[in-house]
Amino acid sequence: MLFTHIGTIVQAHPGTPEKVKGQKLLEIPQLKNAWLRVIDGKIESMGSMDNLPAWEGEEVVDLQGALLMPTWVDCHTHLVFAGSREEEFQWRLQGKGYEQIAAEGGGILNSAKKLQAASEDELYELAVKRMAMLVGFGTGAFEMKSGYGLTTEAELKILRVIRRLKNNFPEIPIKATFMGAHAVPKETNKADYMRLVCEEMIPQIAAEGLADYCDVFCDRGFFTPSEAMQVLMAGKAHGMQPRIHANELGHTGGVDVAIDTKALSADHLEHLNDDEIENLRLSNVMPVFLPGTSFFLGIPYGPAWQLIERDMAFALASDFNPGSCPSGNMNLLASIACTQMKLPVEVVVNATTVNAAYALGLENEVGAIAPGFRANFKTLEPGQTLAAIPYNFGTFKPAKVFVGGKLQQEVFEKVK
Amino acid sequence: MLFTHIGTIVQAHPGTPEKVKGQKLLEIPQLKNAWLRVIDGKIESMGSMDNLPAWEGEEVVDLQGALLMPTWVDCHTHLVFAGSREEEFQWRLQGKGYEQIAAEGGGILNSAKKLQAASEDELYELAVKRMAMLVGFGTGAFEMKSGYGLTTEAELKILRVIRRLKNNFPEIPIKATFMGAHAVPKETNKADYMRLVCEEMIPQIAAEGLADYCDVFCDRGFFTPSEAMQVLMAGKAHGMQPRIHANELGHTGGVDVAIDTKALSADHLEHLNDDEIENLRLSNVMPVFLPGTSFFLGIPYGPAWQLIERDMAFALASDFNPGSCPSGNMNLLASIACTQMKLPVEVVVNATTVNAAYALGLENEVGAIAPGFRANFKTLEPGQTLAAIPYNFGTFKPAKVFVGGKLQQEVFEKVK
Repeated sequence: MLFTHIGTIVQAHPGTPEKVKGQKLLEIPQLKNAWLRVIDGKIESMGSMDNLPAWEGEEVVDLQGALLMPTWVDCHTHLVFAGSREEEFQWRLQGKGYEQIAAEGGGILNSAKKLQAASEDELYELAVKRMAMLVGFGTGAFEMKSGYGLTTEAELKILRVIRRLKNNFPEIPIKATFMGAHAVPKETNKADYMRLVCEEMIPQIAAEGLADYCDVFCDRGFFTPSEAMQVLMAGKAHGMQPRIHANELGHTGGVDVAIDTKALSADHLEHLNDDEIENLRLSNVMPVFLPGTSFFLGIPYGPAWQLIERDMAFALASDFNPGSCPSGNMNLLASIACTQMKLPVEVVVNATTVNAAYALGLENEVGAIAPGFRANFKTLEPGQTLAAIPYNFGTFKPAKVFVGGKLQQEVFEKVK
Repeated sequence: MLFTHIGTIVQAHPGTPEKVKGQKLLEIPQLKNAWLRVIDGKIESMGSMDNLPAWEGEEVVDLQGALLMPTWVDCHTHLVFAGSREEEFQWRLQGKGYEQIAAEGGGILNSAKKLQAASEDELYELAVKRMAMLVGFGTGAFEMKSGYGLTTEAELKILRVIRRLKNNFPEIPIKATFMGAHAVPKETNKADYMRLVCEEMIPQIAAEGLADYCDVFCDRGFFTPSEAMQVLMAGKAHGMQPRIHANELGHTGGVDVAIDTKALSADHLEHLNDDEIENLRLSNVMPVFLPGTSFFLGIPYGPAWQLIERDMAFALASDFNPGSCPSGNMNLLASIACTQMKLPVEVVVNATTVNAAYALGLENEVGAIAPGFRANFKTLEPGQTLAAIPYNFGTFKPAKVFVGGKLQQEVFEKVK
């Protein structure tokens, strides 16, 4: 398939992209007036329209000057969940306290109960529906976490749903993260639950090959740095690379654990002091901010500009989940990052493509338009520039989304 | 047409709704397990499923327990405009100053140039496309302002586009507002432009019956309170009721002008002191906050809670325009109002239905589900509550939208 008359290819790396952690956030490689060839679901070659190659019997798509760019890489989601928590949101706004909300059926533990009651098939159907919608909004690769199960059976159920998604949608790279250490169920105590996570859940999940990564909620009232370290080391011993929920509620030690365990990413980071930033700078840990959560909960945004000033890379992700961020729309995320964190459009696009891919170990597959990469990209309406995405907040949709070289609608045809 | 098995009718007024300025914002009338009959584009009657009336040869829609509620009334938009200003947004984030942006083609005066160059047909096509999208998101009544013209010819052009929209979409009530006093064009001076607005534009527009209302940007660097008074009195003398852009940039006198001219509404109000609030409370002026603009520009949100504490009503509107709020999605507006202004869901729904209708003099036509009202309403997916709207931020869409008793898709069929 040959795409011609592309106005601009954004995030174009005609060679191999540089190791991305070092890419300057304020720059974004572009190729004007271009063509792009897709073979077997991958980008085969690209170039200037001045040197359009010959073709024969190949499908040709004339993009009439439209912009083409990689699909978003959403490197932090909890997309597999059972029920909406909209009523809890309403109660919170009515002034009800945490305790009262928990008593009336809100909170993560009650969310886990709903998930435990749902069948694997129900969860799978819900997840596919969500994924289809989000791919329509322009996301072409996901990370998905367990952690709303909190029993061995329910955690396995979530991870099996993720495996089904991986198998049934090979066009869309998905990484699975085990996050049993998300909260401690009421019926048990911390010590017993830690044992369950480390000695029962992790070995069983590893035996079934269900998780790429292991994550832990290292924060005040959840898991201490030493408990987080224990969980991540147990995961590592079973072949799951670490990632971590760090510094959402304060300077609670998660960043240090990320660095010490050589985590792929440290996520949240609403609170970051100079020492923590400097330690991150000297490490290979990708900082990941989650602006949708800050927006929805009204908590501070991560200090992304302090990282830009130090020439550091970071990623942005949705944190899509039913409690603290019930939206996975990465276009709106871009709007929030631009308007609330005052991030330039180029920074936001780098943070949600190449850098997010790096955070998932997918930096040679997605997040850039480069030969050998997956043909996961989207086009805008003719006349629209990159800025159209965050500017049209709450209404932007790409003109067309391709994953594995196929139109999103074809891939999800079997759904619905 | 008979709708049956409605789970909940929200904003249900089986009699005539109370005079809305007095409606308690935290309460919202609901009717559970209901039916609703539509005849000739209007709500004819409603009641409990326990007393379902007989029917014969009537179309019956079984809503399977879904929620039904009025469409949004968007009482402040600048929906008729020529071009996107996305690049200006990008420049601002790159740190370019106001002067530089104006020099490179940004700002309201350059926006006016684009509009002056566009034909009435082009403007109409763009406006219809935007309106179709927004009705799909659940808005069923609009106010639309001129003010991107700034010459008599261009201001008339905008208002003629609005008249075409009114004529071609009778299912959707639209109110037209003349706002020539939006900015002073570079080519002229304030005194000359004031004369043009008051002595040429207003009489011509009145002669063609093109505007319901007259508005003015009363703020620092735009029009002073005394100039605003002059413009609004000129409008009033020609049968256009006043409304006003007030207190966006400070305590700049706009609220007093609103009260003195008996304006239907005072809009923006990002800055409000106790005296201004008390004066509004004692008046019939509807305060209108525009949270989308605060979100997009990063300016303060209006102090809505101070009004709630005084038992005052207010409306919320989109301010949809290409410079300071390029989104008319009222569902996202609800999310912003809930999460950033901490407004309860019930308050937001009152402020975007009954109160917004009052601000447009449409309080006996739209904004409530009541006999004799227009059949402009929407349904949610079965299982969704009112809170689903703000909760699913950036992804919410109603299941079905009806205007004048017709499905939105039918009304906009003629549009592509």
